[in-house]
Amino acid sequence: MTELSPELTQRILDAVAAGFEDQIAFTTTLGRFPSLRGQEHTAQDFLHDQLQARGYAMDRWAIDVDDIKHHPGFSPVTIDYSNAINVVGTLRPRAETGRSLILNGHVDVVPTGPVDMWTTPPFEPHRDGDWLYGRGIADMKAGIAANIFAVDALARLGYRPAATLYQQSVVEEECTGNGALACLQRGYRADAAIIPEPEDDMLVRANTGVLWFRVRVQGAPVHVREAGTGANAIEAAYELIRGLRELEAAWNARKGDHRYFEDLDHPINFNVGKIAGGDWASSVPAWCEFDCRIAIYPGISAQDAAREIEDHLRRVSDRIPFLANNPPQVIYNGFYAEGYVLEEGTQAEATLARAHMSSYAEPLQSFVTPGYLDGRVFVIYADTPCLVYGPYSQAIHGFDERVKLSSVQRVTGTIALFIAEWCGLEEI
Amino acid sequence: MTELSPELTQRILDAVAAGFEDQIAFTTTLGRFPSLRGQEHTAQDFLHDQLQARGYAMDRWAIDVDDIKHHPGFSPVTIDYSNAINVVGTLRPRAETGRSLILNGHVDVVPTGPVDMWTTPPFEPHRDGDWLYGRGIADMKAGIAANIFAVDALARLGYRPAATLYQQSVVEEECTGNGALACLQRGYRADAAIIPEPEDDMLVRANTGVLWFRVRVQGAPVHVREAGTGANAIEAAYELIRGLRELEAAWNARKGDHRYFEDLDHPINFNVGKIAGGDWASSVPAWCEFDCRIAIYPGISAQDAAREIEDHLRRVSDRIPFLANNPPQVIYNGFYAEGYVLEEGTQAEATLARAHMSSYAEPLQSFVTPGYLDGRVFVIYADTPCLVYGPYSQAIHGFDERVKLSSVQRVTGTIALFIAEWCGLEEI
Repeated sequence: MTELSPELTQRILDAVAAGFEDQIAFTTTLGRFPSLRGQEHTAQDFLHDQLQARGYAMDRWAIDVDDIKHHPGFSPVTIDYSNAINVVGTLRPRAETGRSLILNGHVDVVPTGPVDMWTTPPFEPHRDGDWLYGRGIADMKAGIAANIFAVDALARLGYRPAATLYQQSVVEEECTGNGALACLQRGYRADAAIIPEPEDDMLVRANTGVLWFRVRVQGAPVHVREAGTGANAIEAAYELIRGLRELEAAWNARKGDHRYFEDLDHPINFNVGKIAGGDWASSVPAWCEFDCRIAIYPGISAQDAAREIEDHLRRVSDRIPFLANNPPQVIYNGFYAEGYVLEEGTQAEATLARAHMSSYAEPLQSFVTPGYLDGRVFVIYADTPCLVYGPYSQAIHGFDERVKLSSVQRVTGTIALFIAEWCGLEEI
Repeated sequence: MTELSPELTQRILDAVAAGFEDQIAFTTTLGRFPSLRGQEHTAQDFLHDQLQARGYAMDRWAIDVDDIKHHPGFSPVTIDYSNAINVVGTLRPRAETGRSLILNGHVDVVPTGPVDMWTTPPFEPHRDGDWLYGRGIADMKAGIAANIFAVDALARLGYRPAATLYQQSVVEEECTGNGALACLQRGYRADAAIIPEPEDDMLVRANTGVLWFRVRVQGAPVHVREAGTGANAIEAAYELIRGLRELEAAWNARKGDHRYFEDLDHPINFNVGKIAGGDWASSVPAWCEFDCRIAIYPGISAQDAAREIEDHLRRVSDRIPFLANNPPQVIYNGFYAEGYVLEEGTQAEATLARAHMSSYAEPLQSFVTPGYLDGRVFVIYADTPCLVYGPYSQAIHGFDERVKLSSVQRVTGTIALFIAEWCGLEEI
């Protein structure tokens, strides 16, 4: 509750430094689990065992869609959740004298793309100077390790938090946000939360919501010798993609109406991330479907955004004779999530700012990011200040994804100092 | 050798009519075999047994790429040919007094596309009035049946051809033309050939060659929050598709230089028939590939056309910064085939014209078609007049593909009359 003494601050940072080679080894091991969507469970089992060995009380469960589907923060699910396992470790003090804290991270990683585009194999983490490479290393296995090793550093000094601390490792952050939501539904709450996503040593002040949707075009195929009479579904799909770029431009033009987004160059990113269509080079394709991601400003509900997307696609379709007769289908198949603003002036942020200054010797900066974050679950649905704050990275979601190790060490120091001040410490 | 008497002509047409309900039943049975590429062998086994039961000497073999890959008419192969089975039945006379004949048809069919777009299941042929529906019924199982039942009709009158007659059922017509090519390589030759493709009761005077190629774009994916810095491979692919439409227009503008093609509206059809790209809605896609089909005029070699396609794609790529640094790959994965012209004035055509007049009571018309035909194997590489001539159809390669049964009966009559005059007849 009180600010940390310079002497304790230094002892904590030294303890983080002393454990940092082990932390890199741990991050490397975690990075070897190919925790792509639908196959996160082996990494989760590893984390479960690691936390249990450290004395956490463990909770591990498969997300049940029925438990969360009526929640306003729920996103549509298209896969089987039998192996969608959340892991939460709880560390309880003898006496609850401080403020409780959730340290959260997601274990799921995005696909690698063509593996031959990687310099080294994506699930064989590779250290080169101050960088650690691998799919998911920055986004966000380094963060999960930082959460765990921050507490370990305190333990090395003979301390544990003087308030309940939860380590959450969740799934589904890269596609729905249902993993963090399922933790909330299961009753996990605290006075603050930290999520060490790769945020370039800064705190996220606000972020966008995100919608995922699939657009399906279906037409009448003919022999290509009659190509003029048939509707090419692949080319019709492209007309819709161009139409969605118009919607993106329109939404970006509204940035002035949205606090914290006025000064961003391009807050609303639309992406067509996946496409499939047609069966045969010599048949005019009868179908094409493409998967999209678009951002929405905080305060815009997913429902309102969805309505605007569909209305816009209908207008685009009306311009194209074939599409006018074959309106495209829109299927929501993932993120259906609002953005959030971390209001300024919380005690949690002030605590983070002090811890950051001690660890970095520079003031904490905040910024606005145009991507989805599980922070929205805490801020919107639990009224909990959520500090999304983490290390410097490059090429997340790309080839040769990497995190800067010196930055990870400083972030770990910040988290350890935050715990010491926010939760307080008791001797083990 | 001599023209048929009116009396024999009528007896033959009556015999075709007498067998026609059986012929429809046979076509229906053949249509139930889902002889998509790579799975034609069960239909081929059926045809083998049917021909054997009729007294043909049978030859059945899997195409060996090594046997044909050095032939100038060879097209690249991307699948395993273990089940790519050709079937040829030979019917020999006691005394070879007439002219030999190959009756050819392909048993492979193109994909159905989404099955729910069909009124009735594509591999459960359905008769409605004068139409028989099903995938491959028109293109070209009705033609294979016509070849067989034309000979059967003569047999019912106690006759067989007085020259060697081959029934060829080949694979790979819809993608490479390697099935017909493998028959030629195996030594099958004759004084003329007939292929009853669905040609709306007309003779094909000339057709285009066809090239298949896959274009692969590979880029650098990034998190969508940095979408501006990454190259979206799906959108880059569309730039190339637009570029190929320019090439199509340029080639169409040259139609005046190509005999028989001057008066066609749009002789060169380009089609993008299949597309796949990206892995994840929220990652800027790293790759996209699309499968194309384009026609070429007779006399243009596949090699020359390929060079022009690649040069054009290079010019388009140069206009687009991302593509200039990541030139697309072009992979030839199917048709690599020239077109042909059936020269006017052959005895074979004169014989067909007489047979057609007897069957239809209308003069034979010829036309030019902008699609691939196995006829090129006979005309270009064996100097054999090949008569591609067949029934009226609708929606080949589309949904609810269908053939007009009264037209099939007349085509069968034409073929039976052609055999009688071209090969001559001997009593069984």
